[in-house]
Amino acid sequence: MSRPIPLLLLGAGFSRGAHVPALRGLSGAFRIAGVFSRTRAKAEAVAGELPGPVEVFTELDRALEMPGIEAVDVALPILPASDAIAAALGRGLHVFSEKPIAESVERARALLTLQAPRPDQVWYVAENFRFWETAWRVRELIASGEIGTPLLCHYPTLVPIKSTPWFQTQWRREPGYAGGFLLDGGVHDIAALRLMLGEVSHVSAFVRGVDPALPPADTLAASLQFESGLVANYSVSYALEPVRLTPWSVVKALLSGAERPVRDRFGRKHIVGTHGSIFFMHDRVELVRGLKRTVFKVRSADMMVRQFEDFHAGVRAGQPIRNSPREALHDLAVIEALLTSARERTVTRPARLEDAASLSALAGGQS
Amino acid sequence: MSRPIPLLLLGAGFSRGAHVPALRGLSGAFRIAGVFSRTRAKAEAVAGELPGPVEVFTELDRALEMPGIEAVDVALPILPASDAIAAALGRGLHVFSEKPIAESVERARALLTLQAPRPDQVWYVAENFRFWETAWRVRELIASGEIGTPLLCHYPTLVPIKSTPWFQTQWRREPGYAGGFLLDGGVHDIAALRLMLGEVSHVSAFVRGVDPALPPADTLAASLQFESGLVANYSVSYALEPVRLTPWSVVKALLSGAERPVRDRFGRKHIVGTHGSIFFMHDRVELVRGLKRTVFKVRSADMMVRQFEDFHAGVRAGQPIRNSPREALHDLAVIEALLTSARERTVTRPARLEDAASLSALAGGQS
Repeated sequence: MSRPIPLLLLGAGFSRGAHVPALRGLSGAFRIAGVFSRTRAKAEAVAGELPGPVEVFTELDRALEMPGIEAVDVALPILPASDAIAAALGRGLHVFSEKPIAESVERARALLTLQAPRPDQVWYVAENFRFWETAWRVRELIASGEIGTPLLCHYPTLVPIKSTPWFQTQWRREPGYAGGFLLDGGVHDIAALRLMLGEVSHVSAFVRGVDPALPPADTLAASLQFESGLVANYSVSYALEPVRLTPWSVVKALLSGAERPVRDRFGRKHIVGTHGSIFFMHDRVELVRGLKRTVFKVRSADMMVRQFEDFHAGVRAGQPIRNSPREALHDLAVIEALLTSARERTVTRPARLEDAASLSALAGGQS
Repeated sequence: MSRPIPLLLLGAGFSRGAHVPALRGLSGAFRIAGVFSRTRAKAEAVAGELPGPVEVFTELDRALEMPGIEAVDVALPILPASDAIAAALGRGLHVFSEKPIAESVERARALLTLQAPRPDQVWYVAENFRFWETAWRVRELIASGEIGTPLLCHYPTLVPIKSTPWFQTQWRREPGYAGGFLLDGGVHDIAALRLMLGEVSHVSAFVRGVDPALPPADTLAASLQFESGLVANYSVSYALEPVRLTPWSVVKALLSGAERPVRDRFGRKHIVGTHGSIFFMHDRVELVRGLKRTVFKVRSADMMVRQFEDFHAGVRAGQPIRNSPREALHDLAVIEALLTSARERTVTRPARLEDAASLSALAGGQS
């Protein structure tokens, strides 16, 4: 890799365990020159883990004025992230930001309008599922005709969210944007579905709130039609109660043969074809043809490292990036269409970057 | 049981392997007095298997004029079945007919209007899934709180229909009614879903025709919302290609551990609750709570015999029947709503017997 990109890190929460280790490991590609957090102690804690010198900021505007930086890494909650992306794009900085692209398609389009006049300015919207080896393996198996004509896809995502650190972040527990976890987590699933199956043409969904601790809703059942004609079911619930694991209960489950059904409880994905089926989970793909089963164990690459490498190649070498804002916009547009469908009881077509409204917004930005 | 019901059998195709053996076994409850088929040889073949005397008819009107019969068993293709039911109801005969109740909700309502003035006249719409022990076990497990609050249901039905006798019937291969196999087979699935989860409030679906041998469509992905608030995904494909089985391939599959995934290929149903999951197939129910799995093997009762017993008790003892036309109408109404949703790209509410239009039709019939 060529010369490191001097980078300003915005946010010292989630980024500390996820972004910072990846960036430290890529010291030939990036140099974290500054860290912003409204809480000085958090910014200083991150700075302390980095090879100096690292400047610390508690005001966003001051941080963005830091001389010598070329890019920002936005790891903030969804709403302040959009404001920070706008400010950074307006200053001509390259941006690496966490998914979703924004809190709404409308806001995402406004941000894209800021970037439009400067095509060399890279905006990278991190989406680790586009580096999920399982999804790529599934895509390859379909393309190579292994299951004949794909007919249907079942994609359940079942998560006891209350046992995860994400549930602990206050901004996720009281989301100021539509959809809550259904949006925040949903864009991952849609990214994987689009990677495997192509663009989504129409959607419909029913949404339900079972657990009052998970506003505004925690459960969704949806149908999707893809441009290829394929039809699919996508379902989500975050309302599963956590299970307390003891070493003994795990041993018993393994011995009793319950391990597989227990794992399946969290949602085994299934693509049905005329001549076979593909089942997949996070770490394995199973191909079933006739009475024959082939299991592919999928190694988990460090998806964060690969995304920063991809971003670096985009900035330094002008290479096309895998996580373009267009991809991220389309992921979000499908989720927004699902929420609209559920709210208005309509079958809904996801917005596209190419839609008239979007093009005119971009043209407006360029004039 | 009391005095046998003298019965006229309409149709000598499907009935021969399904209805006739059940009726023969219930000779204390039923006596087949006449058999109608447009093909004399088929009617005579069935009559020859029965303890005489049995009259043979090749004209429906003549058959229905047979003196001494109390009931008809309608085992005809869907469209002529509706005509035959109308004729039989009009003559005051009790009717046992195969699902679906009719080719459309509109036609079903017209038939119900014929029955309305004579509340003692029993119309029984056979639906074996309402005697499916698996569905009853699932219903009990949910009611007893075993999985906490039910969140989601996944109900896939994946059938290589071209390897079944149903594909061989000409009227199914060129259906003169909406939906084809999606309707003919779908009412079974909806009966089971309603039995387990209650009434369906709204549906949406996308439909697809992959195999030109299966008009008008063979594949469907749907979302359902139940009155309880539960949301569900229902999916169907009849377009799976048949797998040729050899004894050796079966042994190999069993030895390699592929038996379970191969079986799963045809659709394992899953109900997700806050505190556990229920997986089920035709012959087994698995309850997964935490890391514990409990398997219930479900014995398969002779569902046809049980339905004729139920019909007999309805006719002779005036007992409420499990397969009332109301139930059958609601099954069909959900399928019709799914097809409407797919055709018109709308979220659709299934018609109900209690709906205004239906009530006025019934009132009209009574005036």
